[in-house]
Amino acid sequence: MFLSLLQPVRMTARCVRSISSFRADDLHITLTDKPKPKPSYDNLPFGGNTSDHMFEVDYTPAMGWSRPVIRPVEPLQIHPAAKVLHYASELFEGMKCYRCVDGKIRMFRPMENLERMERSAVRAGLPPYDRFEFLKVIKKLINIDQEWVPYSDRCSMYIRPTFIATEPSLGVTQSTDAKLFVIAGPTGPYFKTSMKAIRLLADPQYVRAWPGGCGAFKMGSNYAPTVAIQAYAQREHNCQSVLWLFGDDHQMTEAGTMNFFVFWTNEAGEQELVTPPLDAGLILPGVTRKSVLELTRQWNEFKVTEEVIPMGKFIKALNEGRVKEVFGSGTASIVCPVGQILYQGQELHITDTDDIGELTQRICHDINEIHYYLKPHPWMESIDIDGDESLRTVTAN
Amino acid sequence: MFLSLLQPVRMTARCVRSISSFRADDLHITLTDKPKPKPSYDNLPFGGNTSDHMFEVDYTPAMGWSRPVIRPVEPLQIHPAAKVLHYASELFEGMKCYRCVDGKIRMFRPMENLERMERSAVRAGLPPYDRFEFLKVIKKLINIDQEWVPYSDRCSMYIRPTFIATEPSLGVTQSTDAKLFVIAGPTGPYFKTSMKAIRLLADPQYVRAWPGGCGAFKMGSNYAPTVAIQAYAQREHNCQSVLWLFGDDHQMTEAGTMNFFVFWTNEAGEQELVTPPLDAGLILPGVTRKSVLELTRQWNEFKVTEEVIPMGKFIKALNEGRVKEVFGSGTASIVCPVGQILYQGQELHITDTDDIGELTQRICHDINEIHYYLKPHPWMESIDIDGDESLRTVTAN
Repeated sequence: MFLSLLQPVRMTARCVRSISSFRADDLHITLTDKPKPKPSYDNLPFGGNTSDHMFEVDYTPAMGWSRPVIRPVEPLQIHPAAKVLHYASELFEGMKCYRCVDGKIRMFRPMENLERMERSAVRAGLPPYDRFEFLKVIKKLINIDQEWVPYSDRCSMYIRPTFIATEPSLGVTQSTDAKLFVIAGPTGPYFKTSMKAIRLLADPQYVRAWPGGCGAFKMGSNYAPTVAIQAYAQREHNCQSVLWLFGDDHQMTEAGTMNFFVFWTNEAGEQELVTPPLDAGLILPGVTRKSVLELTRQWNEFKVTEEVIPMGKFIKALNEGRVKEVFGSGTASIVCPVGQILYQGQELHITDTDDIGELTQRICHDINEIHYYLKPHPWMESIDIDGDESLRTVTAN
Repeated sequence: MFLSLLQPVRMTARCVRSISSFRADDLHITLTDKPKPKPSYDNLPFGGNTSDHMFEVDYTPAMGWSRPVIRPVEPLQIHPAAKVLHYASELFEGMKCYRCVDGKIRMFRPMENLERMERSAVRAGLPPYDRFEFLKVIKKLINIDQEWVPYSDRCSMYIRPTFIATEPSLGVTQSTDAKLFVIAGPTGPYFKTSMKAIRLLADPQYVRAWPGGCGAFKMGSNYAPTVAIQAYAQREHNCQSVLWLFGDDHQMTEAGTMNFFVFWTNEAGEQELVTPPLDAGLILPGVTRKSVLELTRQWNEFKVTEEVIPMGKFIKALNEGRVKEVFGSGTASIVCPVGQILYQGQELHITDTDDIGELTQRICHDINEIHYYLKPHPWMESIDIDGDESLRTVTAN
């Protein structure tokens, strides 16, 4: 849909990038002299703990990219007129690394995230850089903070690359200046004890994304509009999250910040795993979504389809006893079973809280095996850095 | 549309506010010892200059509102995990004050902005405060930086209240912590020499707002998705701005960051000023928009209507010679004539660049008379503060 806009920009980006990126070789590293105590793995809230260090690099048109630095986590200095604080010119990624059974630390499909981040940056009007150099500095950050990667086969380290517009000027235009940074922190299992199915509010009067908007990009602007609705769903309807609907036929699009899957017997009597398609620009192209599709297609045991799921079609299947499982997918939870949906006063009952579907469990199990390298897999990428000698310049604080 | 969500929240907000707001009486003021040189009025870019001082106050659930401060403009210290940098939990207002012909400084309809800001804060899930106390501290800031209000009947001081989510945690939830701040700066006439009509790109594949979204609220998330499209319109089509269309009938909704007006002879043969209505939640309820509607309704010389304007209806009127004037309205430009629209390869010619319509000129003239108090008007509000004695505690830096 955005090809006419994005194609020329991306081509420009590609030409410029080779000469204008920051380089991992230029990293300046300052280590903390006050390492923080590591939190207990038992009760790690999502995104509440940052490790000791962060990555940071700035862009201005006059100077290009500044020297990239890894330094202790400290507040950023942001001008009060910076565009990120007014016009939401910001985007991010969420990725994880794991302490694998062989003792090595590996990242899960990092290039998938960094390619998506590049698409987000073009859509947000932020400047290009070389994603391979970026991956190197992220690996270096993980190396430095490797003791923050939990010694646990239930936990991981969450990594948050973030890109913000820093030009201190209130014009609603593309920002001349930008800051790229990365923070990281240990994160617990999404499900503290065992998996529990969640309850979703599906209210068609709230819409997350639309054709011609930015729903397919991981821009901050997709999230702010959702938090009050999410809080309302919890407060008024005892729903842990929101099922975002779209269109007159109330298509099921995403669940909270997760992609959305239905496993059912379709109208032709076939077993089918179905998730909404990416083509209308309504759906975030999730890395876990893609992995679930690839994994289940490899199994070759049932049909795997990307197709619109209107609420009416879903309810019909539910009433006919054809819906087996419903789950969300995302980096935080991997998969998250859906037990009930509250839709226009109707209670749609899919499963009981503790009765987790076989497919949901199997996908979770198989992806976990990959994450912790119980089963070596090309999706896992070592954090060793090629030619790292030049990245070893470490300065005490 | 959002009543079901917002009504209970707003009522809560109202109850809490009386006991939990910051208070202007508690202001702590630190003056700069390095006042900046004032820029020349001849070439003031919009939003590029900040005055010497800013207002700032923080909220945490445990401490409530901190002591409000006015202090020299300096970078904000923002944690890299603060929600504003990731999820666009942010909103703002744009308002102006003028140095009037009697030498006094006055603000234009500030309560209209502060009421809208309160609605935005509810929608964004940010905490409530007392808007009357907020107005007092804004007035105090203007008093302190009054030499920054241009001595010119063509310039003004732009005031930017901003509200951001500062909780340092990556969960996609309502932020526990928030920062409210205000910066200000002199701003020139939008039209440096005389008014010039602009050219708009109207491309239905890019959509600014959607029913069930946040288009009616002044949240940062409405702007980030527009800047790359705006740059594309300028670069590829020599258009200064974008005309945002909506729906299968390509309704004209907003022009760039401005509300949109058409003055025509309607199909019934009546002279009519028409602007899109607020009810679908697609349109920002602009203060200038409201003022243009009120002013022209007071004239009682032609029909003034809030109604959907599909592109087809507009083109028919244009072809029949019934379109007299098209303009945008907003705080930055007041009114801005539209000369051409590029729509799906069609060049829609409304007026020549230098040929500004009579109505556009008259509205601009009348609102300017109000701004500079050539004609005393209740829309203008003095920056004197009732019982200001207690606000006079000024500490040298």
